[in-house]
Amino acid sequence: MTRPSPALPLDGAISRYAETEAPAAIREALKNAKKNDILDASFPYRQGLEKAAYNAQMLPLQIQMVRLQNDLRQSGRRLVVLFEGRDAAGKGGTIRTVTENLNPRHATVVALPKPTEREATQWYFQRYIDWLPAAGEMVFFDRSWYNRAVVEHVFGFCTPEQREHFFRQQPGFEETLADENITLVKIWLNVGRAEQLRRMIDRERDPLKQWKLSAIDAEGLHRWEDYTAAIREMLRRSHIPEAPWTIIRSDDKRRARIAAMQTILHRMEFEGKDEAAIGAPDPLIVSDPDLRHG
Amino acid sequence: MTRPSPALPLDGAISRYAETEAPAAIREALKNAKKNDILDASFPYRQGLEKAAYNAQMLPLQIQMVRLQNDLRQSGRRLVVLFEGRDAAGKGGTIRTVTENLNPRHATVVALPKPTEREATQWYFQRYIDWLPAAGEMVFFDRSWYNRAVVEHVFGFCTPEQREHFFRQQPGFEETLADENITLVKIWLNVGRAEQLRRMIDRERDPLKQWKLSAIDAEGLHRWEDYTAAIREMLRRSHIPEAPWTIIRSDDKRRARIAAMQTILHRMEFEGKDEAAIGAPDPLIVSDPDLRHG
Amino acid sequence: MTRPSPALPLDGAISRYAETEAPAAIREALKNAKKNDILDASFPYRQGLEKAAYNAQMLPLQIQMVRLQNDLRQSGRRLVVLFEGRDAAGKGGTIRTVTENLNPRHATVVALPKPTEREATQWYFQRYIDWLPAAGEMVFFDRSWYNRAVVEHVFGFCTPEQREHFFRQQPGFEETLADENITLVKIWLNVGRAEQLRRMIDRERDPLKQWKLSAIDAEGLHRWEDYTAAIREMLRRSHIPEAPWTIIRSDDKRRARIAAMQTILHRMEFEGKDEAAIGAPDPLIVSDPDLRHG
Amino acid sequence: MTRPSPALPLDGAISRYAETEAPAAIREALKNAKKNDILDASFPYRQGLEKAAYNAQMLPLQIQMVRLQNDLRQSGRRLVVLFEGRDAAGKGGTIRTVTENLNPRHATVVALPKPTEREATQWYFQRYIDWLPAAGEMVFFDRSWYNRAVVEHVFGFCTPEQREHFFRQQPGFEETLADENITLVKIWLNVGRAEQLRRMIDRERDPLKQWKLSAIDAEGLHRWEDYTAAIREMLRRSHIPEAPWTIIRSDDKRRARIAAMQTILHRMEFEGKDEAAIGAPDPLIVSDPDLRHG
Ligand SMILES: Nc1ncnc2c1ncn2[C@@H]1O[C@H](COP(=O)(O)OP(=O)(O)O)[C@@H](O)[C@H]1O
Ligand SMILES: Nc1ncnc2c1ncn2[C@@H]1O[C@H](COP(=O)(O)OP(=O)(O)O)[C@@H](O)[C@H]1O
Ligand SMILES: Nc1ncnc2c1ncn2[C@@H]1O[C@H](COP(=O)(O)OP(=O)(O)O)[C@@H](O)[C@H]1O
Ligand SMILES: Nc1ncnc2c1ncn2[C@@H]1O[C@H](COP(=O)(O)O)[C@@H](O)[C@H]1O
Repeated sequence: MTRPSPALPLDGAISRYAETEAPAAIREALKNAKKNDILDASFPYRQGLEKAAYNAQMLPLQIQMVRLQNDLRQSGRRLVVLFEGRDAAGKGGTIRTVTENLNPRHATVVALPKPTEREATQWYFQRYIDWLPAAGEMVFFDRSWYNRAVVEHVFGFCTPEQREHFFRQQPGFEETLADENITLVKIWLNVGRAEQLRRMIDRERDPLKQWKLSAIDAEGLHRWEDYTAAIREMLRRSHIPEAPWTIIRSDDKRRARIAAMQTILHRMEFEGKDEAAIGAPDPLIVSDPDLRHG
Repeated sequence: MTRPSPALPLDGAISRYAETEAPAAIREALKNAKKNDILDASFPYRQGLEKAAYNAQMLPLQIQMVRLQNDLRQSGRRLVVLFEGRDAAGKGGTIRTVTENLNPRHATVVALPKPTEREATQWYFQRYIDWLPAAGEMVFFDRSWYNRAVVEHVFGFCTPEQREHFFRQQPGFEETLADENITLVKIWLNVGRAEQLRRMIDRERDPLKQWKLSAIDAEGLHRWEDYTAAIREMLRRSHIPEAPWTIIRSDDKRRARIAAMQTILHRMEFEGKDEAAIGAPDPLIVSDPDLRHG
Repeated sequence: MTRPSPALPLDGAISRYAETEAPAAIREALKNAKKNDILDASFPYRQGLEKAAYNAQMLPLQIQMVRLQNDLRQSGRRLVVLFEGRDAAGKGGTIRTVTENLNPRHATVVALPKPTEREATQWYFQRYIDWLPAAGEMVFFDRSWYNRAVVEHVFGFCTPEQREHFFRQQPGFEETLADENITLVKIWLNVGRAEQLRRMIDRERDPLKQWKLSAIDAEGLHRWEDYTAAIREMLRRSHIPEAPWTIIRSDDKRRARIAAMQTILHRMEFEGKDEAAIGAPDPLIVSDPDLRHG
Repeated sequence: MTRPSPALPLDGAISRYAETEAPAAIREALKNAKKNDILDASFPYRQGLEKAAYNAQMLPLQIQMVRLQNDLRQSGRRLVVLFEGRDAAGKGGTIRTVTENLNPRHATVVALPKPTEREATQWYFQRYIDWLPAAGEMVFFDRSWYNRAVVEHVFGFCTPEQREHFFRQQPGFEETLADENITLVKIWLNVGRAEQLRRMIDRERDPLKQWKLSAIDAEGLHRWEDYTAAIREMLRRSHIPEAPWTIIRSDDKRRARIAAMQTILHRMEFEGKDEAAIGAPDPLIVSDPDLRHG
């Protein structure tokens, strides 16, 4: 039996936005762009990294990542990595790359759905704490407790007061993890406005990616500025010595993935660590919040 | 089929201790003591509170406790009460009294067994956090995260370094609860040395109470001084404005139970609260760590 | 500060029902009844058991219960006891009695609140299974998976189809527990109509018991017959050899508590078990579903 | 700082086995084999599927999988897929393929570590049940409750009696899931002996795959026959109408992944389902336990 395939998701709200509502500069950037062109003029490269160059860099990073996991298993140390960023910034794909060769029995990916009504009345950090690693484990969060500071705030899912609670509690919570010797790596994937829109249009059209669009996303396009303000404040307030943010420009997915692997690997010591193989993160792509570009 | 009942638990280690090893003053105090006599000379009363007087005071406290729960249900507020104290200090019985008239669907008693080997490698607070209340709930901990600062330390179940971690993390964690508007009441039941021994002897002999004796308890008798030092340090370091300790002398169980109810009730505002019915805690029994007697 | 105490809960719906809506025979029974009188004419005793007699019988039962727990701890066996019954049948009080002298670290009372919206879409048994005992543990359910067959059905919280699912799944689930050597004791506390109403009126008036009244309870009074039909069907369909029901008439709370202790103790073998001390359950009070009175 | 990379894992136990202990026919098959050659003479193809052909077939399957998830989200239905098979049979990689385009917030991969000592005393199915899906969710198990019937048995991690418990309980448990309208798909990836060994040698040498080798694996090579017997019995006894096994020969990973996707997709109805796009599973690769080849 063949049923008709669904129409454009969200009734084509994304392309409608792209055609009529997006700022002129963004619309201009999208026009005539070729597949591997970088859209954002402020991005330090005009083209995405070539596949061959990417593969050559990625292989040793993958090997190092496997060594890191081996060492964690031996030493019982624990690692938490948060991936945050706007919609379509590349969180999911980056996590897939990082975990590609890891033993899933000790490397967990956590992508929590929205809280139940009961969870919504508990301590905000509680349901995340539930997933913290035991000895030898790594946990990767696809979105995290920072939802409260950004998404929930932009969409009014939390009160301003709840958000202030978050900001008051976050340093203590993360310092505690550090004190526990749980390494916490916080990665912000920073995508440009035109590139985000391009990816969303792709998602709208590509039947493989349509699930990636949620009602929130279309609405989010209109709130770019609110997001920007929320993100700025969040980064400024939550960038603490014990748990610093690493900002990675992700207009070029490949460079972003390499940078994310490097960021994680540089944060840990491990048996078989090879600084040369890991390489220095590209300073044009990677920064801390104070220096961030774009 | 009738099988023989078990012999004295722990091979009579408690009575052996009482007869031969306990300090002379303690042995003296136990001798000739009548049932309702208070053993500790420094205790402000010579006799336990009479049952009739106890009942008369307890009834209004119970009513107030029911009101408190009603109000929490209405307002969605949350309450956590920790009961700590040496073995036989009266934690379990006091909790039974406090919860006697509460709806168990929203008032949970948590008495965690020793951590599994996996839990032992997680963040120490994690398995307690799992039990924090949702809207309208009360949670009563029979022993709590303070195990690390006292029992685990005295028996070598944790390293000195782990204990220092605990002390560094505890204020932040509890301040966060306060910030969350989760009220945290911390009650230390302070039992005298002779009284503790009397109760343990009782437990050894009374088939109803034998389960209350663990191998740790017999051993603990020998470590009274270590306990004392561990408790002193713990109280001093963890008595913070957002989560103060209340020390309740518990040589007289009835007075202690009344004081515990008063302590909890005074910490909360609630519909139908009646200060007169609750009454002032007896200053001879209740103190904060700086002033504690005994 | 003194705030006014709340008025009659549920706006006096219980006493209104008692005065105007209850069947005449019930109203008659309530009139002139003295405190210890049994209201239901079909009950085999005219008076509740005297306190002294109760205490004399209860003490050895308590001791046996402690022995049972000791043996479970030694042998690693596991026990689950369900307490079911109409509102005010005496579930909570009976559980308090049974657990009075048990070590709470290994004897858990489970009184689950209504399911969250997420839980409501999971396998119905799932959230109960979460609480099944590990080696050496006892778990006491204050209401259980039988909610689906009775309360949820009577109030329309589940569809008839969901209820049929329950009945199809229940035998397999409980047989599996039996096969696992987890003993499952299912106790139905059977309260008469007049006695139920008397207790509810008490709850309405007594500030200590008011929390026990939920909106569902007042409504439930009107649905006595629906309840009766739902209970009959439930008992008939779920009384299986591996997990039989024990029906205990609970118009007299004291006799019911004794019978519940006996029921549990007789189901298990344990070191120090003393059949004489436990005694035979009163056949006028205790029956299986086929023979049940009242 | 550069530390030396670790030596061959497991001290080269795999290659030692391959060189000296493996049956002669297996050693012969491994010799001279080219990368894409199929080793097992009974396999219906001599070469692995070409990449281009694979990609052409995989794309529509991926699209269908996304539609399936969309439909589950809409309809609230639930899906569980188990992946089982010997070490190196391709479970992990197949799961990565199946989930490649799924929203991780509603598609969970579960790869449980060995049970803690507390879990080991609970009902065997309990920790798996914890992960059953809520409305709209898919759960993929990388190994599952079938551990008891195979791995745990072969290595003596469970008693024969525990295994019999498993076999008695499994049909009821799975029938219940069916009754719940939770679709359960059980996939056995069947890898030939020479191919398994080739993959293990690869793992030994390839720094990217070394984590995939556990101590159990080297030992498992010697127990091929025990495994075979355990698997046969398991498939025969647990292949029930409500939860049938699908056996997929996985000497060729690409054909196996296609077949796994087809198997899942054919089991469900969903909006946008396109039978032609899914295609019929290759009967030379896919069978049920009664017909299984190899
Ligand atoms: N090996 C251990 N590691 C950590 N905590 C332990 C260990 N053994 C016992 N404990 C804890 O010490 C406390 C006191 O133990 P015990 O005296 O047996 O319990 P109770 O509070 O029931 O008297 C309990 O909270 C128990 O969980
Ligand atoms: N909407 C609902 N859906 C399912 N179960 C419910 C719902 N509302 C109440 N219940 C259940 O019905 C039972 C009876 O409720 P109630 O009378 O309020 O509790 P209690 O047992 O404390 O008297 C409880 O187990 C409760 O969880
Ligand atoms: N002592 C044990 N008791 C029970 N199960 C075990 C034990 N040791 C290993 N297992 C289980 O056996 C399976 C195979 O183990 P292993 O080969 O190490 O894992 P993998 O599936 O990652 O290759 C896993 O599911 C593991 O949890
Ligand atoms: N009502 C809500 N309250 C809180 N968080 C939400 C809510 N709706 C969506 N989210 C979260 O917002 C993030 C983005 O949602 P989505 O784009 O749907 O994946 C996810 O982490 C969601 O869990």
